Amino acid sequence: MTDIGSIPKAAVFRLSLYLRELVKFQKTGVKTLSSAGLAAALGFTDVRVRKDLAYFGQFGYPGVGYKVDELIGELKHILGTDRTWDVVLIGCGNLGSALVAYKGFRTQGFNIVGAFDADAKKAGKALGELTIQPMTKLAETVARTGARIAMISVPADQAQAVADQAAGAGVRGILNFAPTTITTPAHVVENSVDLAIRLEQLTFQLRFLMQDSED
Amino acid sequence: MTDIGSIPKAAVFRLSLYLRELVKFQKTGVKTLSSAGLAAALGFTDVRVRKDLAYFGQFGYPGVGYKVDELIGELKHILGTDRTWDVVLIGCGNLGSALVAYKGFRTQGFNIVGAFDADAKKAGKALGELTIQPMTKLAETVARTGARIAMISVPADQAQAVADQAAGAGVRGILNFAPTTITTPAHVVENSVDLAIRLEQLTFQLRFLMQDSED
Repeated sequence: MTDIGSIPKAAVFRLSLYLRELVKFQKTGVKTLSSAGLAAALGFTDVRVRKDLAYFGQFGYPGVGYKVDELIGELKHILGTDRTWDVVLIGCGNLGSALVAYKGFRTQGFNIVGAFDADAKKAGKALGELTIQPMTKLAETVARTGARIAMISVPADQAQAVADQAAGAGVRGILNFAPTTITTPAHVVENSVDLAIRLEQLTFQLRFLMQDSED
Repeated sequence: MTDIGSIPKAAVFRLSLYLRELVKFQKTGVKTLSSAGLAAALGFTDVRVRKDLAYFGQFGYPGVGYKVDELIGELKHILGTDRTWDVVLIGCGNLGSALVAYKGFRTQGFNIVGAFDADAKKAGKALGELTIQPMTKLAETVARTGARIAMISVPADQAQAVADQAAGAGVRGILNFAPTTITTPAHVVENSVDLAIRLEQLTFQLRFLMQDSED
């Protein structure tokens, strides 16, 4: 199980979907659930659900299925969200402001503990409950707070330089919102969020859907 | 090829990655490329690349590989980004403001042609080059501009109602940024962008990475 290299990324992504679905079931008072029940809620096959979960352990009970509370706890542990993570934000433009305000982070255990911008004129200004700091304070803040994650929301042409600074400051994981790819040293993991890709995936579906109807 | 239901979503997603990589190759003057070359740039196997592209047609030339310009054109056509798409934005808070300013959309052919907010006090205010409109103007704008896509950046508890209004106004595709799931009628496709999921996928990797080292 600790050899995460052999686990498909798509299975890990579906783990996040299972977790969200289980939390919804939990809220409606459901205590136990079959793999078929969880699968149906997401439009997957039950084989898919069982196979995905089997990468991480044995969670079901014969004749019972999954215990909802227990599986939620297990999935949070696997995904690393059974704890809180301190995060620094680099880039305090519109997107950075939106990320600071995004309520979905805090509910999942992500606390933004510092906001940084390369533009010295922004330093000292308020961003939500934070005060924008210059990049020269990044290493100090990372060391003091123990933040291990940086969210980068800077223009594309600044993303690599900022990622290098974050890695140098002791950050171990980078979530990149800039519309470009960045590289990181082997001891720093990186995920990119390209907002246009999501829209492009939508137009792929839309193009075929619209062929079949009015347009 | 038009039976898109049989094509794995992950393959369509990788198509977007191939396209971005090919554009980078094009910028550096590369004219032809093997599947192995494209695969190596992304850390995939060449079998993966060939198999993904085979869902959509036959693009390589024996002894030559892929012609970069041509394959870019083909992939854009498949993904529906060989044209421009007019998009309406619903929800003009921080995230909506960031989406309007996000340069990655326009470069991919997505133009935000209208911005709407349920808060009547916001109506008439400027958002980038747009003027925020009340929701009562949504159907009229969709009809006038022919916009087929809505981006939703409202609080979670308003997302479903807003999606229903967008579908009612004639939108055919919804990109949902609210941290909740929404359902749409069969003739409307929906993709959700849960920003916290990306962070959660990062902590999954990070947790294992940190086990192997200092922390």
